[in-house]
Amino acid sequence: MDIFERIKENPGPLGQFADYGEGYFIFPRLEGPIGPRMQFQGREVIFWSANDYLGLCNHPEVIEADAKAAAEYGMFYPMGARAMSGETDQHLQLEKELAEFVQKESAYLLNFGYQGMVSTIDALVSRNDVIVYDVDSHACIVDGVRLHSGKRFTYRHNDIESLEKNLQRATKVAEENGGGILVITEGVFGMRGQQGKIKEICDLKSKYNFRLLVDDAHGFGTLGKTGAGAGEEQGCQDQIDVYFSTFAKSMAGFGAFIAGDKEIIRYLKFNLRSQIFAKSLTMPMVIGGLKRLELLRTRPEIKAKLWENTYKLQNGLKERGFNIGDSNTCVTPVMMQGTPVEATLLVKDLRENYGIFTSVVVYPVIPKGMILLRLIPTASHTDAEINETLAAFEAIHDKLVSGHYKEQEQKLLQEQGLSFKPI
Amino acid sequence: MDIFERIKENPGPLGQFADYGEGYFIFPRLEGPIGPRMQFQGREVIFWSANDYLGLCNHPEVIEADAKAAAEYGMFYPMGARAMSGETDQHLQLEKELAEFVQKESAYLLNFGYQGMVSTIDALVSRNDVIVYDVDSHACIVDGVRLHSGKRFTYRHNDIESLEKNLQRATKVAEENGGGILVITEGVFGMRGQQGKIKEICDLKSKYNFRLLVDDAHGFGTLGKTGAGAGEEQGCQDQIDVYFSTFAKSMAGFGAFIAGDKEIIRYLKFNLRSQIFAKSLTMPMVIGGLKRLELLRTRPEIKAKLWENTYKLQNGLKERGFNIGDSNTCVTPVMMQGTPVEATLLVKDLRENYGIFTSVVVYPVIPKGMILLRLIPTASHTDAEINETLAAFEAIHDKLVSGHYKEQEQKLLQEQGLSFKPI
Repeated sequence: MDIFERIKENPGPLGQFADYGEGYFIFPRLEGPIGPRMQFQGREVIFWSANDYLGLCNHPEVIEADAKAAAEYGMFYPMGARAMSGETDQHLQLEKELAEFVQKESAYLLNFGYQGMVSTIDALVSRNDVIVYDVDSHACIVDGVRLHSGKRFTYRHNDIESLEKNLQRATKVAEENGGGILVITEGVFGMRGQQGKIKEICDLKSKYNFRLLVDDAHGFGTLGKTGAGAGEEQGCQDQIDVYFSTFAKSMAGFGAFIAGDKEIIRYLKFNLRSQIFAKSLTMPMVIGGLKRLELLRTRPEIKAKLWENTYKLQNGLKERGFNIGDSNTCVTPVMMQGTPVEATLLVKDLRENYGIFTSVVVYPVIPKGMILLRLIPTASHTDAEINETLAAFEAIHDKLVSGHYKEQEQKLLQEQGLSFKPI
Repeated sequence: MDIFERIKENPGPLGQFADYGEGYFIFPRLEGPIGPRMQFQGREVIFWSANDYLGLCNHPEVIEADAKAAAEYGMFYPMGARAMSGETDQHLQLEKELAEFVQKESAYLLNFGYQGMVSTIDALVSRNDVIVYDVDSHACIVDGVRLHSGKRFTYRHNDIESLEKNLQRATKVAEENGGGILVITEGVFGMRGQQGKIKEICDLKSKYNFRLLVDDAHGFGTLGKTGAGAGEEQGCQDQIDVYFSTFAKSMAGFGAFIAGDKEIIRYLKFNLRSQIFAKSLTMPMVIGGLKRLELLRTRPEIKAKLWENTYKLQNGLKERGFNIGDSNTCVTPVMMQGTPVEATLLVKDLRENYGIFTSVVVYPVIPKGMILLRLIPTASHTDAEINETLAAFEAIHDKLVSGHYKEQEQKLLQEQGLSFKPI
């Protein structure tokens, strides 16, 4: 069957909702200056969907650094791949400072986080090695594992018993093949906000021989005494063999880095395909990155404010009886019961009548019958914004429980003759 | 065997030269304002390694657009993934203009070219499909193919007979599985400068059922009457099913785009994993991209100047008896005979005594005993720079042929007790 014919018949898991949701539930367009209040379809909304934990995205010193670097270098500098012509003193300086910040010997910048993680996994393992990874891992980890030509096992999400069982299987295979074992977890699982159990994973090192790669995208800058992330928070940063974080969350930018022992990072520098064969991280993000990291280091009050806001939001939700799962990070999921159509009606109500913009997740990302609204508090949100949001959540939850959205759903389906496959 | 132990024993194909070449032959640091003359280790060099064909990297209008956008938006805007919160009017506008420019119905921006290509291949094929691709394809194509769980065949580089043979094999497999066929080529092969034989590939569509994906990184902006690339140059742009180009060459930036029929691009928008699950292209590059594309459209004299320089350089080399292979693009490879050590000595001489900076490629990227120096002419190079380079090439070639570098090599190896495995 012709590839395009197949594509036209099967638009894919998200594509099937394209006509219903595009521009609203998926690919929405936020407008106006970036921050906790933005414009959506002509009205102001309190915005809870930016992973800009520390509120640096519109920090005047950050914007100034970005703009000054762009005026001096444009967006093309340095020219090519790091190996070819893309290495500068500033890249090396940021690497030095990042390594110190996350308490590792050495760090290496990545031109983009997604492909950087894919290539890191790809470069770390050979076909005789075995990968053991959390089943809820981010897509970039999954794609990296997909490149592996050897064995891989998933363990149940954040389940140390399941990890140990799989480490036993992996040890057997690795011994047979003469290979090693790479365990991969996230520092913080971004959807439901649980920290990866890094400490407990590291404790297994006394029983099993493996190396640990941690994707700490949401932990970097938010967790640990100094902001060094989930490993610091759990007192085992030194046990993480390869530490990864993106700049697309606390660092309010793009690009990423890996950190670890000098010899291993040097190996990765020479062997990451997406870095050897693609353009170096652009200079404005490197110079802007130095500024952001300086703020992380020197303004602990920003992280304190983030956590103050996080506690206000999370405690406010709990006091009102909301189920926020077992989040032990700033990521704040609010779980409710309802159909996917109810979820969309509720989110629409929230946006249009209460001026609150959140992301919504339904099956198959989470179990059937569950609605997950995800709130990302930042250091920039105000008490007024938090309180307004808590009141709005109370109101829409009352409506949900009273069957308000269920009625709307039935009316909508009847009127418009719409039908959805039950998913 | 522990993963890190293996890594320490085997530093990888490039890593084995790390101690010898780091900072000079690999990961060199160019300094000073970007352009055809830069600083390398304290001296000015004429720089031939930037894929900045049109010289836009330091065009005042480009720098102004980049800087203004960075001052307004910083580097974080828009906040998240396109699907989540990363869609803006400017993204859609640039897509509209790119589609028009490459004569396609629709286009979609990619946050980075490498992972964009990987995910495009991944999203286009299902396990029953067969991929047939040029054996010299760029690493991002190779990684995309590596994700494919079905059959794949390579054909000999730019060899239509070999392609046809593999299309016959692929057709058989595809028919058995009920799948389709995806053919992948580059518009321009960036190492030796040959155009992919897109016209001849498209002619095979009358005999075989396949879809064609073209990576036109080096063709976009440099080839074809309007700069629409290798397909336009060969009169078959409309036969390319999915057109891909990076912004890291003629567009003097980063990020990329795909273009094709509306329905297919929309499918890809909803199904590219590296785009659904990672940050949208940053606003300064989108606004800067609009400016760059405007210059591509409205200043044909820039492309004319690029080609004037290309002809001067290539004709000058040919007149002096150099072998520049069968390049029919701006990419200018200069092939000489010598050992890898001679190559490094020659390049060092060229940089330090003649002030010419080029990239050098040896085995295993090209056949044993060959030295390939790659020159990328741009619209910014001056006649004086071209002439100086031609004279320098003549001088170092004379030295090479006279055995000058061979003598140095032997002396070096004896004096320093160095030995290299013959590779």
